[in-house]
Amino acid sequence: MKLQVAMDVLTVEAALELAGKVAEYVDIIELGTPLVKNAGLSAVTAIKTAHPDKTVFADMKTMDAGELEAEIAFSAGADLVSVLGSADDCTIAGAVKAAKAHNKGIVVDLIGVADKVTRAKEARALGAKFIEFHAGLDEQAKPGYNLDVLLSAGEEARVPFSVAGGVNISTINAVQRAGADVAVVGGSIYSADDPALAAKELRAAII
Amino acid sequence: MKLQVAMDVLTVEAALELAGKVAEYVDIIELGTPLVKNAGLSAVTAIKTAHPDKTVFADMKTMDAGELEAEIAFSAGADLVSVLGSADDCTIAGAVKAAKAHNKGIVVDLIGVADKVTRAKEARALGAKFIEFHAGLDEQAKPGYNLDVLLSAGEEARVPFSVAGGVNISTINAVQRAGADVAVVGGSIYSADDPALAAKELRAAII
Repeated sequence: MKLQVAMDVLTVEAALELAGKVAEYVDIIELGTPLVKNAGLSAVTAIKTAHPDKTVFADMKTMDAGELEAEIAFSAGADLVSVLGSADDCTIAGAVKAAKAHNKGIVVDLIGVADKVTRAKEARALGAKFIEFHAGLDEQAKPGYNLDVLLSAGEEARVPFSVAGGVNISTINAVQRAGADVAVVGGSIYSADDPALAAKELRAAII
Repeated sequence: MKLQVAMDVLTVEAALELAGKVAEYVDIIELGTPLVKNAGLSAVTAIKTAHPDKTVFADMKTMDAGELEAEIAFSAGADLVSVLGSADDCTIAGAVKAAKAHNKGIVVDLIGVADKVTRAKEARALGAKFIEFHAGLDEQAKPGYNLDVLLSAGEEARVPFSVAGGVNISTINAVQRAGADVAVVGGSIYSADDPALAAKELRAAII
């Protein structure tokens, strides 16, 4: 299982600093959606230039203009680009077309999708490289939030998948047991007192 | 009925040039999602600085972190910020909270939402200033696409609303007859040989 750090910071400087600390422990470096919107796609270029050996994920959360949005993100240096599962099939297909042209990959993000298992299979059939079973920051903040629902759905869908939704050192083993290809960790790394140590421990927890 | 130009261009320079040509004929200047992602929120600041008397709309299409994404867009100079109707209620509520703190407004964009009438009422109850009945660029490109479905839904919902989905000089009167508060025009202005003339004619068509 690969480890992905989701960098929910707002500036290129903060992203470069965080990536510099944790890159050696992670496989995939994700630029969060607020970072992309705040700083623009030059942030992707900056991270890819600083870490050319890492897979760089632009969390575009595309809802429309799939081919165009994926195209500009891949051109900026992204290796993976996300499209929303709630987007139209033709938006996902357009993004996949751009990915094929660049020999890169599309990740379909199931945030906000009610029937995640069905949509995961559809998105995979449309050409997504893997599917992100994702509970957003706002959903995680709600009372009673539990990661297990995502893990069960991921396990059931039988597609390559990642899990994002507050994964931490206590839950990363359950994510691996559910069969995830990628564990996405955000706050447990970027909000840690020592992000490098947090990333190192998460990496060590993966069997 | 107000006229909104959706600037689906990719650079601040192109946006400033287009806005400079059409601002006198429109009420609301929208920075499209690909522009925000490509150039970052400094694009919003550039347009608001150049056109302080216009309402500036940042088409963030927020799906998560509603309060944060709205906060950074308002801080950059936006007067209106969009959140996706497919987002969680708490994401919309978070964005509305940021809007209230800035005395600005949230627009909920119904792109990709199946039951637009129900979701429009819910979004309005959550505090959206108005609701965008929207068919995306990818949906418009599909065979058989027809604006009338959006107009009927907007009319039925009985909330303040805008219409976006290929509105042009032939359909803007139907948009007004449906009771829309805002007509959103993209390609019919930005792809016109003479964008200023196109905007002027659209403005003149509004009774």
